[in-house]
Amino acid sequence: MFDYKLLAALAAVVEQGGFERAALRLGLSQSAVSQRIKLLEARVGQPVLVRASPPAPTDIGRRLLNHVQQVRLLEHDLQAQVPALDDGLPPERLRIALNADSLATWWAEATAPFCAEQRVLLDLVVEDQDVGLRRMRAGEVAGCLCGAERPVAGARSQLLGAMRYRGVASPAFVARHFADGVTAAALARAPGIVFGNDDLLQHRYLATLGFEEDFRHHLCPSSDGFVRLTLAGVGWGMVPELQAGQALAEGRLVDLMPGRGVDVPLYWHHWRNGGELLASLTDHLRRRAPDWLAVAD
Amino acid sequence: MFDYKLLAALAAVVEQGGFERAALRLGLSQSAVSQRIKLLEARVGQPVLVRASPPAPTDIGRRLLNHVQQVRLLEHDLQAQVPALDDGLPPERLRIALNADSLATWWAEATAPFCAEQRVLLDLVVEDQDVGLRRMRAGEVAGCLCGAERPVAGARSQLLGAMRYRGVASPAFVARHFADGVTAAALARAPGIVFGNDDLLQHRYLATLGFEEDFRHHLCPSSDGFVRLTLAGVGWGMVPELQAGQALAEGRLVDLMPGRGVDVPLYWHHWRNGGELLASLTDHLRRRAPDWLAVAD
Repeated sequence: MFDYKLLAALAAVVEQGGFERAALRLGLSQSAVSQRIKLLEARVGQPVLVRASPPAPTDIGRRLLNHVQQVRLLEHDLQAQVPALDDGLPPERLRIALNADSLATWWAEATAPFCAEQRVLLDLVVEDQDVGLRRMRAGEVAGCLCGAERPVAGARSQLLGAMRYRGVASPAFVARHFADGVTAAALARAPGIVFGNDDLLQHRYLATLGFEEDFRHHLCPSSDGFVRLTLAGVGWGMVPELQAGQALAEGRLVDLMPGRGVDVPLYWHHWRNGGELLASLTDHLRRRAPDWLAVAD
Repeated sequence: MFDYKLLAALAAVVEQGGFERAALRLGLSQSAVSQRIKLLEARVGQPVLVRASPPAPTDIGRRLLNHVQQVRLLEHDLQAQVPALDDGLPPERLRIALNADSLATWWAEATAPFCAEQRVLLDLVVEDQDVGLRRMRAGEVAGCLCGAERPVAGARSQLLGAMRYRGVASPAFVARHFADGVTAAALARAPGIVFGNDDLLQHRYLATLGFEEDFRHHLCPSSDGFVRLTLAGVGWGMVPELQAGQALAEGRLVDLMPGRGVDVPLYWHHWRNGGELLASLTDHLRRRAPDWLAVAD
Protein backbone atom coordinates (compact mmCIF):
# COMPACT_ATOMS: atom_id res chain seq x y z
CA MET A 1 0.00 0.00 0.00
CA PHE A 2 0.97 3.63 -0.35
CA ASP A 3 2.66 5.36 2.54
CA TYR A 4 -0.18 7.62 3.70
CA LYS A 5 2.06 9.59 6.04
CA LEU A 6 3.70 10.95 2.91
CA LEU A 7 0.43 11.59 1.11
CA ALA A 8 -1.03 13.30 4.17
CA ALA A 9 1.98 15.63 4.20
CA LEU A 10 1.34 16.53 0.57
CA ALA A 11 -2.35 17.16 1.26
CA ALA A 12 -1.56 19.31 4.30
CA VAL A 13 0.96 21.47 2.40
CA VAL A 14 -1.54 22.14 -0.40
CA GLU A 15 -4.60 22.61 1.82
CA GLN A 16 -2.85 24.80 4.37
CA GLY A 17 -1.04 26.77 1.68
CA GLY A 18 2.48 26.24 2.98
CA PHE A 19 4.96 24.04 4.80
CA GLU A 20 4.83 25.93 8.08
CA ARG A 21 1.07 25.65 8.45
CA ALA A 22 1.13 22.06 7.27
CA ALA A 23 3.62 21.30 10.03
CA LEU A 24 1.33 22.96 12.60
CA ARG A 25 -1.64 21.01 11.29
CA LEU A 26 0.20 17.70 11.47
CA GLY A 27 2.01 18.44 14.72
CA LEU A 28 5.37 17.92 13.03
CA SER A 29 8.42 20.09 12.49
CA GLN A 30 8.64 21.91 9.20
CA SER A 31 11.71 19.92 8.22
CA ALA A 32 9.85 16.66 8.89
CA VAL A 33 7.13 17.78 6.47
CA SER A 34 9.78 18.74 3.91
CA GLN A 35 11.42 15.37 4.39
CA ARG A 36 8.16 13.55 3.76
CA ILE A 37 7.54 15.46 0.55
CA LYS A 38 11.06 14.70 -0.65
CA LEU A 39 10.60 11.03 0.18
CA LEU A 40 7.30 10.99 -1.70
CA GLU A 41 9.01 12.59 -4.70
CA ALA A 42 11.77 10.00 -4.55
CA ARG A 43 9.13 7.24 -4.57
CA VAL A 44 7.13 8.57 -7.51
CA GLY A 45 10.29 9.64 -9.31
CA GLN A 46 9.21 13.23 -10.00
CA PRO A 47 8.20 16.46 -8.23
CA VAL A 48 4.76 16.47 -6.59
CA LEU A 49 4.83 20.16 -5.68
CA VAL A 50 5.74 23.38 -7.43
CA ARG A 51 7.61 25.33 -4.73
CA ALA A 52 5.70 28.60 -5.17
CA SER A 53 3.82 30.65 -2.62
CA PRO A 54 1.42 28.99 -1.99
CA PRO A 55 2.83 25.63 -3.13
CA ALA A 56 0.86 24.06 -5.99
CA PRO A 57 0.61 20.39 -6.87
CA THR A 58 2.18 19.14 -10.11
CA ASP A 59 0.12 16.90 -12.39
CA ILE A 60 1.18 13.78 -10.56
CA GLY A 61 0.69 15.64 -7.24
CA ARG A 62 -2.88 16.41 -8.26
CA ARG A 63 -3.56 12.77 -9.01
CA LEU A 64 -2.21 11.80 -5.59
CA LEU A 65 -4.35 14.44 -3.86
CA ASN A 66 -7.40 13.29 -5.71
CA HIS A 67 -6.73 9.82 -4.35
CA VAL A 68 -6.15 11.10 -0.79
CA GLN A 69 -9.44 12.98 -0.85
CA GLN A 70 -11.36 9.84 -1.68
CA VAL A 71 -9.49 7.67 0.80
CA ARG A 72 -10.30 10.18 3.53
CA LEU A 73 -13.98 10.00 2.80
CA LEU A 74 -13.85 6.22 2.99
CA GLU A 75 -11.91 6.44 6.26
CA HIS A 76 -14.60 8.67 7.71
CA ASP A 77 -17.16 5.94 7.04
CA LEU A 78 -14.98 3.31 8.65
CA GLN A 79 -14.32 5.44 11.73
CA ALA A 80 -18.02 5.73 12.36
CA GLN A 81 -18.08 1.93 12.61
CA VAL A 82 -14.70 1.47 14.34
CA PRO A 83 -14.11 4.54 16.50
CA ALA A 84 -10.89 3.07 17.90
CA LEU A 85 -9.26 3.79 14.55
CA ASP A 86 -9.28 7.48 15.44
CA ASP A 87 -5.78 8.83 14.85
CA GLY A 88 -6.02 11.54 17.48
CA LEU A 89 -5.78 14.36 14.94
CA PRO A 90 -8.54 16.96 14.78
CA PRO A 91 -11.43 15.66 12.67
CA GLU A 92 -11.08 16.04 8.91
CA ARG A 93 -13.22 18.68 7.34
CA LEU A 94 -15.41 18.03 4.34
CA ARG A 95 -14.07 20.42 1.74
CA ILE A 96 -16.72 21.85 -0.58
CA ALA A 97 -16.39 24.39 -3.39
CA LEU A 98 -19.51 26.45 -4.00
CA ASN A 99 -20.69 29.63 -5.69
CA ALA A 100 -20.75 32.82 -3.61
CA ASP A 101 -24.48 33.40 -4.05
CA SER A 102 -25.43 29.98 -2.67
CA LEU A 103 -23.27 30.52 0.39
CA ALA A 104 -24.80 33.98 0.85
CA THR A 105 -28.36 32.60 0.68
CA TRP A 106 -29.65 29.04 1.14
CA TRP A 107 -26.58 26.88 1.84
CA ALA A 108 -26.31 27.42 5.61
CA GLU A 109 -29.93 26.67 6.40
CA ALA A 110 -30.02 23.72 4.01
CA THR A 111 -26.93 22.03 5.44
CA ALA A 112 -27.22 22.93 9.15
CA PRO A 113 -29.19 19.76 10.06
CA PHE A 114 -26.67 17.62 8.18
CA CYS A 115 -23.71 19.17 10.04
CA ALA A 116 -25.40 18.70 13.41
CA GLU A 117 -26.47 15.08 12.77
CA GLN A 118 -23.16 13.94 11.30
CA ARG A 119 -20.99 16.07 13.59
CA VAL A 120 -19.01 17.02 10.52
CA LEU A 121 -16.97 20.20 10.02
CA LEU A 122 -17.09 21.92 6.65
CA ASP A 123 -14.26 23.68 4.84
CA LEU A 124 -16.10 25.90 2.37
CA VAL A 125 -14.27 27.30 -0.63
CA VAL A 126 -15.93 30.02 -2.69
CA GLU A 127 -15.12 29.58 -6.38
CA ASP A 128 -16.73 30.22 -9.69
CA GLN A 129 -17.58 27.10 -11.60
CA ASP A 130 -14.43 26.58 -13.65
CA VAL A 131 -12.11 26.89 -10.67
CA GLY A 132 -14.44 24.81 -8.47
CA LEU A 133 -14.44 21.95 -10.95
CA ARG A 134 -10.69 22.26 -11.43
CA ARG A 135 -10.29 21.87 -7.66
CA MET A 136 -12.57 18.86 -7.85
CA ARG A 137 -10.44 17.31 -10.57
CA ALA A 138 -7.35 18.05 -8.50
CA GLY A 139 -8.86 16.24 -5.54
CA GLU A 140 -8.77 19.40 -3.43
CA VAL A 141 -12.49 19.28 -2.68
CA ALA A 142 -14.96 16.49 -2.03
CA GLY A 143 -17.88 18.22 -3.69
CA CYS A 144 -18.63 21.23 -5.84
CA LEU A 145 -21.81 23.25 -6.28
CA CYS A 146 -21.82 25.20 -9.52
CA GLY A 147 -23.62 26.07 -12.73
CA ALA A 148 -21.82 23.57 -14.97
CA GLU A 149 -23.40 20.20 -15.58
CA ARG A 150 -20.53 18.10 -16.88
CA PRO A 151 -18.81 16.12 -14.09
CA VAL A 152 -15.07 15.52 -13.95
CA ALA A 153 -13.81 11.95 -14.37
CA GLY A 154 -14.81 9.77 -11.42
CA ALA A 155 -17.55 12.14 -10.29
CA ARG A 156 -21.30 12.52 -10.80
CA SER A 157 -23.36 15.66 -11.12
CA GLN A 158 -26.92 16.18 -10.02
CA LEU A 159 -29.25 19.08 -10.84
CA LEU A 160 -30.55 20.60 -7.58
CA GLY A 161 -32.64 23.42 -9.06
CA ALA A 162 -32.08 26.97 -10.23
CA MET A 163 -31.29 30.28 -8.60
CA ARG A 164 -33.58 32.95 -9.98
CA TYR A 165 -32.07 36.40 -10.45
CA ARG A 166 -33.95 39.69 -10.75
CA GLY A 167 -32.65 43.00 -12.08
CA VAL A 168 -32.96 45.39 -9.14
CA ALA A 169 -32.05 48.91 -8.02
CA SER A 170 -32.95 51.28 -5.20
CA PRO A 171 -35.99 53.56 -5.61
CA ALA A 172 -33.73 56.65 -5.65
CA PHE A 173 -31.57 55.08 -8.37
CA VAL A 174 -34.68 54.27 -10.42
CA ALA A 175 -35.92 57.85 -10.07
CA ARG A 176 -32.51 59.19 -11.12
CA HIS A 177 -31.85 56.93 -14.10
CA PHE A 178 -35.16 55.47 -15.25
CA ALA A 179 -37.54 58.40 -15.04
CA ASP A 180 -38.53 57.69 -18.65
CA GLY A 181 -38.87 53.95 -18.14
CA VAL A 182 -36.54 50.98 -17.96
CA THR A 183 -35.23 50.56 -21.49
CA ALA A 184 -32.12 48.76 -22.70
CA ALA A 185 -30.53 52.11 -23.54
CA ALA A 186 -31.26 53.55 -20.09
CA LEU A 187 -29.97 50.38 -18.40
CA ALA A 188 -26.77 50.50 -20.41
CA ARG A 189 -26.22 54.19 -19.54
CA ALA A 190 -26.87 53.83 -15.81
CA PRO A 191 -23.95 52.33 -13.87
CA GLY A 192 -24.41 48.60 -13.36
CA ILE A 193 -22.73 46.25 -10.91
CA VAL A 194 -20.98 43.09 -12.05
CA PHE A 195 -19.57 40.40 -9.75
CA GLY A 196 -16.44 39.83 -11.84
CA ASN A 197 -15.18 39.35 -15.37
CA ASP A 198 -16.89 35.95 -15.58
CA ASP A 199 -20.27 37.26 -14.44
CA LEU A 200 -22.40 37.61 -17.57
CA LEU A 201 -25.79 37.75 -15.81
CA GLN A 202 -26.23 41.47 -16.41
CA HIS A 203 -25.15 41.03 -20.02
CA ARG A 204 -27.71 38.24 -20.46
CA TYR A 205 -30.43 40.41 -18.90
CA LEU A 206 -29.62 43.20 -21.34
CA ALA A 207 -29.44 40.69 -24.20
CA THR A 208 -33.07 39.67 -23.54
CA LEU A 209 -33.82 43.31 -24.44
CA GLY A 210 -31.77 43.07 -27.61
CA PHE A 211 -28.83 45.03 -26.20
CA GLU A 212 -25.52 43.25 -26.85
CA GLU A 213 -22.86 45.90 -26.24
CA ASP A 214 -20.71 46.61 -23.22
CA PHE A 215 -22.03 48.88 -20.50
CA ARG A 216 -20.61 50.98 -17.63
CA HIS A 217 -20.29 48.94 -14.46
CA HIS A 218 -18.69 48.69 -11.07
CA LEU A 219 -16.94 45.43 -10.15
CA CYS A 220 -17.82 43.87 -6.78
CA PRO A 221 -16.76 40.26 -6.12
CA SER A 222 -18.82 39.87 -2.92
CA SER A 223 -22.36 38.61 -2.83
CA ASP A 224 -23.40 40.65 0.16
CA GLY A 225 -21.41 43.70 -0.95
CA PHE A 226 -23.24 43.48 -4.29
CA VAL A 227 -26.67 43.70 -2.63
CA ARG A 228 -25.51 46.52 -0.38
CA LEU A 229 -24.28 48.52 -3.37
CA THR A 230 -27.71 48.16 -5.01
CA LEU A 231 -29.46 49.13 -1.74
CA ALA A 232 -27.22 52.19 -1.38
CA GLY A 233 -28.04 53.28 -4.94
CA VAL A 234 -24.56 52.81 -6.39
CA GLY A 235 -25.82 50.80 -9.36
CA TRP A 236 -28.31 48.31 -10.74
CA GLY A 237 -27.59 44.58 -10.80
CA MET A 238 -28.90 41.04 -10.90
CA VAL A 239 -29.59 39.74 -7.40
CA PRO A 240 -30.96 36.31 -6.38
CA GLU A 241 -34.65 36.47 -5.46
CA LEU A 242 -33.67 34.67 -2.25
CA GLN A 243 -31.48 37.62 -1.33
CA ALA A 244 -33.59 40.52 -2.67
CA GLY A 245 -37.01 39.20 -1.62
CA GLN A 246 -37.37 41.05 1.66
CA ALA A 247 -35.97 44.35 0.35
CA LEU A 248 -38.32 44.08 -2.66
CA ALA A 249 -41.29 43.45 -0.36
CA GLU A 250 -40.33 46.41 1.81
CA GLY A 251 -39.78 48.70 -1.18
CA ARG A 252 -36.07 49.22 -0.46
CA LEU A 253 -35.35 47.63 -3.85
CA VAL A 254 -37.37 47.79 -7.07
CA ASP A 255 -37.69 44.96 -9.60
CA LEU A 256 -36.67 46.74 -12.81
CA MET A 257 -38.60 44.46 -15.14
CA PRO A 258 -41.11 42.37 -13.19
CA GLY A 259 -41.56 38.96 -14.76
CA ARG A 260 -38.20 39.11 -16.50
CA GLY A 261 -35.33 37.38 -14.74
CA VAL A 262 -32.44 35.06 -15.40
CA ASP A 263 -32.35 31.50 -14.05
CA VAL A 264 -29.03 29.83 -13.26
CA PRO A 265 -29.11 26.05 -12.76
CA LEU A 266 -27.12 24.62 -9.88
CA TYR A 267 -25.44 21.22 -10.12
CA TRP A 268 -24.01 19.27 -7.20
CA HIS A 269 -20.82 17.43 -8.17
CA HIS A 270 -19.61 14.59 -5.94
CA TRP A 271 -17.22 11.64 -6.17
CA ARG A 272 -18.76 8.41 -7.36
CA ASN A 273 -16.85 6.46 -4.69
CA GLY A 274 -16.95 9.19 -2.09
CA GLY A 275 -18.23 7.05 0.77
CA GLU A 276 -21.26 7.27 3.06
CA LEU A 277 -20.73 10.78 4.37
CA LEU A 278 -20.65 12.36 0.94
CA ALA A 279 -23.53 10.16 -0.27
CA SER A 280 -25.53 11.27 2.75
CA LEU A 281 -24.79 14.95 2.02
CA THR A 282 -25.80 14.40 -1.60
CA ASP A 283 -29.05 12.83 -0.47
CA HIS A 284 -29.65 15.64 2.01
CA LEU A 285 -29.06 18.35 -0.61
CA ARG A 286 -31.34 16.63 -3.10
CA ARG A 287 -34.14 16.57 -0.51
CA ARG A 288 -33.66 20.07 0.93
CA ALA A 289 -32.57 22.22 -2.03
CA PRO A 290 -36.07 22.44 -3.58
CA ASP A 291 -37.17 24.43 -0.49
CA TRP A 292 -35.02 27.29 -1.75
CA LEU A 293 -34.33 26.73 -5.44
CA ALA A 294 -36.65 27.14 -8.38
CA VAL A 295 -37.44 24.24 -10.70
CA ALA A 296 -34.82 24.37 -13.48
CA ASP A 297 -35.98 24.29 -17.10
CA MET B 1 8.31 60.13 -21.99
CA PHE B 2 7.28 56.51 -21.64
CA ASP B 3 5.14 54.95 -24.31
CA TYR B 4 1.84 54.66 -22.44
CA LYS B 5 0.26 52.48 -25.11
CA LEU B 6 2.69 49.80 -24.02
CA LEU B 7 2.15 50.38 -20.33
CA ALA B 8 -1.63 50.36 -20.79
CA ALA B 9 -1.32 46.97 -22.48
CA LEU B 10 0.60 45.63 -19.50
CA ALA B 11 -1.97 47.01 -17.08
CA ALA B 12 -4.86 45.54 -19.06
CA VAL B 13 -3.29 42.06 -19.22
CA VAL B 14 -2.74 42.00 -15.44
CA GLU B 15 -6.05 43.60 -14.49
CA GLN B 16 -8.13 41.53 -16.90
CA GLY B 17 -6.23 38.37 -16.07
CA GLY B 18 -5.27 37.45 -19.62
CA PHE B 19 -4.36 38.57 -23.12
CA GLU B 20 -7.75 37.82 -24.65
CA ARG B 21 -9.69 39.94 -22.16
CA ALA B 22 -7.06 42.67 -22.29
CA ALA B 23 -7.56 42.81 -26.07
CA LEU B 24 -11.33 43.11 -25.60
CA ARG B 25 -10.86 45.84 -23.03
CA LEU B 26 -8.52 47.81 -25.29
CA GLY B 27 -10.41 47.12 -28.51
CA LEU B 28 -7.29 45.54 -30.04
CA SER B 29 -6.49 42.13 -31.44
CA GLN B 30 -4.83 39.69 -29.09
CA SER B 31 -1.68 39.69 -31.21
CA ALA B 32 -1.51 43.49 -31.02
CA VAL B 33 -1.55 43.25 -27.22
CA SER B 34 1.14 40.56 -27.35
CA GLN B 35 3.18 42.75 -29.63
CA ARG B 36 2.97 45.70 -27.26
CA ILE B 37 4.10 43.59 -24.31
CA LYS B 38 7.06 42.28 -26.34
CA LEU B 39 7.98 45.81 -27.38
CA LEU B 40 7.78 46.96 -23.76
CA GLU B 41 10.06 44.07 -22.75
CA ALA B 42 12.51 44.97 -25.49
CA ARG B 43 12.58 48.56 -24.18
CA VAL B 44 13.14 47.69 -20.52
CA GLY B 45 15.47 44.84 -21.46
CA GLN B 46 13.74 42.16 -19.39
CA PRO B 47 10.41 40.33 -19.03
CA VAL B 48 7.56 42.33 -17.50
CA LEU B 49 5.15 39.39 -17.27
CA VAL B 50 5.34 35.81 -16.09
CA ARG B 51 3.32 33.94 -18.73
CA ALA B 52 1.17 31.96 -16.30
CA SER B 53 -2.61 31.72 -16.06
CA PRO B 54 -3.44 34.40 -15.06
CA PRO B 55 -0.31 36.31 -16.16
CA ALA B 56 1.59 37.89 -13.26
CA PRO B 57 3.89 40.91 -13.36
CA THR B 58 7.62 40.45 -12.76
CA ASP B 59 9.40 42.77 -10.31
CA ILE B 60 10.04 45.35 -12.99
CA GLY B 61 6.47 44.80 -14.28
CA ARG B 62 5.14 45.61 -10.83
CA ARG B 63 7.11 48.82 -10.70
CA LEU B 64 5.70 49.84 -14.08
CA LEU B 65 2.14 49.05 -12.98
CA ASN B 66 2.59 51.04 -9.82
CA HIS B 67 3.56 53.97 -11.98
CA VAL B 68 0.61 53.46 -14.38
CA GLN B 69 -1.83 53.41 -11.47
CA GLN B 70 -0.63 56.80 -10.25
CA VAL B 71 -0.52 58.34 -13.72
CA ARG B 72 -4.12 57.27 -14.27
CA LEU B 73 -5.27 59.00 -11.12
CA LEU B 74 -3.53 62.18 -12.22
CA GLU B 75 -5.11 61.85 -15.67
CA HIS B 76 -8.53 61.58 -14.09
CA ASP B 77 -7.97 64.96 -12.41
CA LEU B 78 -6.84 66.52 -15.64
CA GLN B 79 -9.80 65.14 -17.59
CA ALA B 80 -12.19 66.82 -15.20
CA GLN B 81 -10.58 70.11 -16.22
CA VAL B 82 -9.99 69.33 -19.90
CA PRO B 83 -12.78 66.97 -20.98
CA ALA B 84 -11.56 67.02 -24.60
CA LEU B 85 -8.66 64.84 -23.50
CA ASP B 86 -11.10 61.95 -23.17
CA ASP B 87 -9.62 58.98 -25.05
CA GLY B 88 -12.98 57.46 -25.91
CA LEU B 89 -12.33 54.33 -23.85
CA PRO B 90 -14.79 53.40 -21.11
CA PRO B 91 -13.98 55.34 -17.92
CA GLU B 92 -11.23 53.93 -15.75
CA ARG B 93 -12.36 52.29 -12.57
CA LEU B 94 -10.91 53.18 -9.21
CA ARG B 95 -9.49 49.90 -7.97
CA ILE B 96 -9.75 49.40 -4.22
CA ALA B 97 -8.74 46.42 -2.08
CA LEU B 98 -10.79 46.00 1.09
CA ASN B 99 -11.62 43.47 3.76
CA ALA B 100 -14.69 41.29 3.22
CA ASP B 101 -16.46 42.44 6.38
CA SER B 102 -16.32 46.13 5.41
CA LEU B 103 -17.76 45.36 1.99
CA ALA B 104 -20.48 43.26 3.64
CA THR B 105 -21.43 46.07 6.04
CA TRP B 106 -20.72 49.82 5.87
CA TRP B 107 -18.72 50.36 2.66
CA ALA B 108 -21.60 50.67 0.18
CA GLU B 109 -23.58 53.19 2.18
CA ALA B 110 -20.49 55.19 3.07
CA THR B 111 -19.23 55.50 -0.51
CA ALA B 112 -22.52 55.75 -2.46
CA PRO B 113 -22.64 59.59 -2.31
CA PHE B 114 -19.02 59.77 -3.48
CA CYS B 115 -19.69 57.49 -6.49
CA ALA B 116 -22.76 59.48 -7.50
CA GLU B 117 -21.08 62.90 -7.17
CA GLN B 118 -17.86 61.95 -8.91
CA ARG B 119 -19.49 59.65 -11.47
CA VAL B 120 -16.72 57.18 -10.74
CA LEU B 121 -16.88 53.41 -11.19
CA LEU B 122 -15.28 51.20 -8.54
CA ASP B 123 -13.40 47.96 -9.07
CA LEU B 124 -13.55 46.35 -5.62
CA VAL B 125 -11.12 43.59 -4.72
CA VAL B 126 -11.69 41.58 -1.56
CA GLU B 127 -8.38 40.70 0.10
CA ASP B 128 -7.04 40.14 3.54
CA GLN B 129 -4.59 42.77 4.66
CA ASP B 130 -1.30 41.22 3.54
CA VAL B 131 -2.49 40.58 0.02
CA GLY B 132 -4.25 43.95 -0.16
CA LEU B 133 -1.07 45.81 0.73
CA ARG B 134 0.94 43.63 -1.63
CA ARG B 135 -1.43 44.66 -4.42
CA MET B 136 -0.98 48.27 -3.33
CA ARG B 137 2.79 47.93 -3.52
CA ALA B 138 2.41 46.33 -6.96
CA GLY B 139 0.36 49.26 -8.15
CA GLU B 140 -2.63 47.03 -8.81
CA VAL B 141 -4.94 49.07 -6.59
CA ALA B 142 -5.28 52.77 -5.83
CA GLY B 143 -6.33 52.28 -2.23
CA CYS B 144 -6.53 49.59 0.40
CA LEU B 145 -8.71 49.27 3.49
CA CYS B 146 -7.27 46.85 6.02
CA GLY B 147 -6.18 46.22 9.58
CA ALA B 148 -2.49 46.96 9.10
CA GLU B 149 -1.20 50.44 9.86
CA ARG B 150 2.15 50.54 8.08
CA PRO B 151 1.86 52.08 4.60
CA VAL B 152 3.86 50.84 1.61
CA ALA B 153 6.48 53.17 0.12
CA GLY B 154 4.88 56.21 -1.53
CA ALA B 155 1.59 55.76 0.32
CA ARG B 156 -0.04 57.09 3.47
CA SER B 157 -2.29 55.31 5.93
CA GLN B 158 -5.07 56.81 7.98
CA LEU B 159 -6.99 55.26 10.88
CA LEU B 160 -10.73 55.36 10.11
CA GLY B 161 -12.00 53.61 13.24
CA ALA B 162 -12.56 50.05 14.41
CA MET B 163 -14.93 47.25 13.56
CA ARG B 164 -16.31 45.74 16.75
CA TYR B 165 -16.84 41.99 16.73
CA ARG B 166 -19.09 40.01 19.06
CA GLY B 167 -19.06 36.27 19.74
CA VAL B 168 -22.51 35.08 18.66
CA ALA B 169 -24.54 31.91 18.09
CA SER B 170 -28.17 30.98 17.50
CA PRO B 171 -30.42 30.40 20.54
CA ALA B 172 -30.75 26.68 19.63
CA PHE B 173 -26.96 26.37 19.40
CA VAL B 174 -26.59 28.04 22.80
CA ALA B 175 -29.13 25.66 24.33
CA ARG B 176 -27.34 22.65 22.82
CA HIS B 177 -23.77 23.58 23.69
CA PHE B 178 -23.84 26.12 26.51
CA ALA B 179 -26.55 24.79 28.83
CA ASP B 180 -24.05 25.03 31.68
CA GLY B 181 -22.81 28.48 30.73
CA VAL B 182 -20.40 29.94 28.21
CA THR B 183 -16.96 28.84 29.40
CA ALA B 184 -13.73 28.64 27.46
CA ALA B 185 -13.91 24.84 27.60
CA ALA B 186 -17.47 24.77 26.26
CA LEU B 187 -16.60 27.25 23.49
CA ALA B 188 -13.62 25.16 22.47
CA ARG B 189 -15.74 21.98 22.35
CA ALA B 190 -18.63 23.47 20.39
CA PRO B 191 -17.92 23.82 16.67
CA GLY B 192 -16.76 27.32 15.81
CA ILE B 193 -16.62 29.09 12.46
CA VAL B 194 -13.43 30.69 11.16
CA PHE B 195 -13.16 32.84 8.02
CA GLY B 196 -9.83 31.35 6.91
CA ASN B 197 -6.41 30.34 8.14
CA ASP B 198 -5.50 34.00 8.72
CA ASP B 199 -8.58 34.74 10.79
CA LEU B 200 -7.48 34.73 14.43
CA LEU B 201 -10.50 36.63 15.85
CA GLN B 202 -12.02 33.54 17.42
CA HIS B 203 -8.63 32.57 18.82
CA ARG B 204 -8.24 36.04 20.33
CA TYR B 205 -11.73 35.84 21.84
CA LEU B 206 -10.87 32.51 23.47
CA ALA B 207 -7.50 33.89 24.55
CA THR B 208 -9.25 36.62 26.58
CA LEU B 209 -10.68 33.67 28.54
CA GLY B 210 -7.24 32.17 28.99
CA PHE B 211 -7.79 29.43 26.38
CA GLU B 212 -4.86 29.24 23.96
CA GLU B 213 -5.27 25.87 22.23
CA ASP B 214 -6.76 24.95 18.89
CA PHE B 215 -10.49 24.29 18.67
CA ARG B 216 -12.88 22.50 16.30
CA HIS B 217 -14.08 24.83 13.56
CA HIS B 218 -15.68 25.08 10.16
CA LEU B 219 -13.98 27.24 7.53
CA CYS B 220 -16.14 29.75 5.66
CA PRO B 221 -14.42 32.47 3.61
CA SER B 222 -17.58 34.53 3.02
CA SER B 223 -18.78 37.30 5.27
CA ASP B 224 -22.45 36.75 4.60
CA GLY B 225 -22.08 32.95 4.57
CA PHE B 226 -20.43 33.24 7.97
CA VAL B 227 -23.42 35.06 9.48
CA ARG B 228 -25.84 32.63 7.86
CA LEU B 229 -23.99 29.67 9.33
CA THR B 230 -24.29 31.21 12.81
CA LEU B 231 -27.99 31.99 12.25
CA ALA B 232 -28.60 28.41 11.07
CA GLY B 233 -26.92 27.03 14.21
CA VAL B 234 -23.94 25.45 12.46
CA GLY B 235 -21.43 27.05 14.82
CA TRP B 236 -20.45 30.04 16.94
CA GLY B 237 -18.28 32.83 15.57
CA MET B 238 -17.17 36.45 15.79
CA VAL B 239 -19.48 38.70 13.75
CA PRO B 240 -19.27 42.51 13.32
CA GLU B 241 -21.83 44.32 15.48
CA LEU B 242 -22.86 46.13 12.30
CA GLN B 243 -23.85 42.80 10.79
CA ALA B 244 -25.26 41.03 13.86
CA GLY B 245 -27.07 44.00 15.41
CA GLN B 246 -30.52 43.37 14.01
CA ALA B 247 -30.44 39.60 14.58
CA LEU B 248 -29.24 40.23 18.16
CA ALA B 249 -32.08 42.71 18.74
CA GLU B 250 -34.61 40.23 17.35
CA GLY B 251 -33.25 37.32 19.38
CA ARG B 252 -32.19 35.32 16.33
CA LEU B 253 -28.60 35.53 17.57
CA VAL B 254 -27.32 35.58 21.14
CA ASP B 255 -24.27 37.56 22.33
CA LEU B 256 -22.26 34.81 24.04
CA MET B 257 -20.41 37.13 26.42
CA PRO B 258 -22.08 40.54 26.54
CA GLY B 259 -19.54 43.28 27.07
CA ARG B 260 -16.70 41.16 25.74
CA GLY B 261 -15.76 41.69 22.11
CA VAL B 262 -12.78 42.14 19.85
CA ASP B 263 -12.04 45.44 18.09
CA VAL B 264 -10.22 45.46 14.76
CA PRO B 265 -8.82 48.84 13.62
CA LEU B 266 -9.30 49.80 9.99
CA TYR B 267 -6.69 51.80 8.12
CA TRP B 268 -7.20 53.48 4.77
CA HIS B 269 -4.07 53.31 2.59
CA HIS B 270 -3.76 55.66 -0.38
CA TRP B 271 -1.03 56.99 -2.67
CA ARG B 272 0.63 60.18 -1.52
CA ASN B 273 0.53 61.55 -5.10
CA GLY B 274 -2.73 59.91 -6.03
CA GLY B 275 -4.44 62.99 -7.39
CA GLU B 276 -7.69 64.78 -6.60
CA LEU B 277 -10.07 61.87 -7.01
CA LEU B 278 -8.26 59.68 -4.50
CA ALA B 279 -7.75 62.62 -2.13
CA SER B 280 -11.44 63.34 -2.33
CA LEU B 281 -12.31 59.69 -1.55
CA THR B 282 -9.89 59.79 1.38
CA ASP B 283 -11.54 62.92 2.67
CA HIS B 284 -14.99 61.40 2.17
CA LEU B 285 -14.07 58.22 4.05
CA ARG B 286 -12.53 60.17 6.92
CA ARG B 287 -15.75 62.14 7.32
CA ARG B 288 -18.24 59.28 6.86
CA ALA B 289 -16.56 56.24 8.45
CA PRO B 290 -17.23 57.36 12.05
CA ASP B 291 -20.98 56.92 11.36
CA TRP B 292 -20.36 53.17 11.24
CA LEU B 293 -17.06 52.44 12.95
CA ALA B 294 -16.23 52.51 16.64
CA VAL B 295 -13.53 54.78 17.99
CA ALA B 296 -10.29 52.79 17.86
CA ASP B 297 -8.15 52.55 21.00
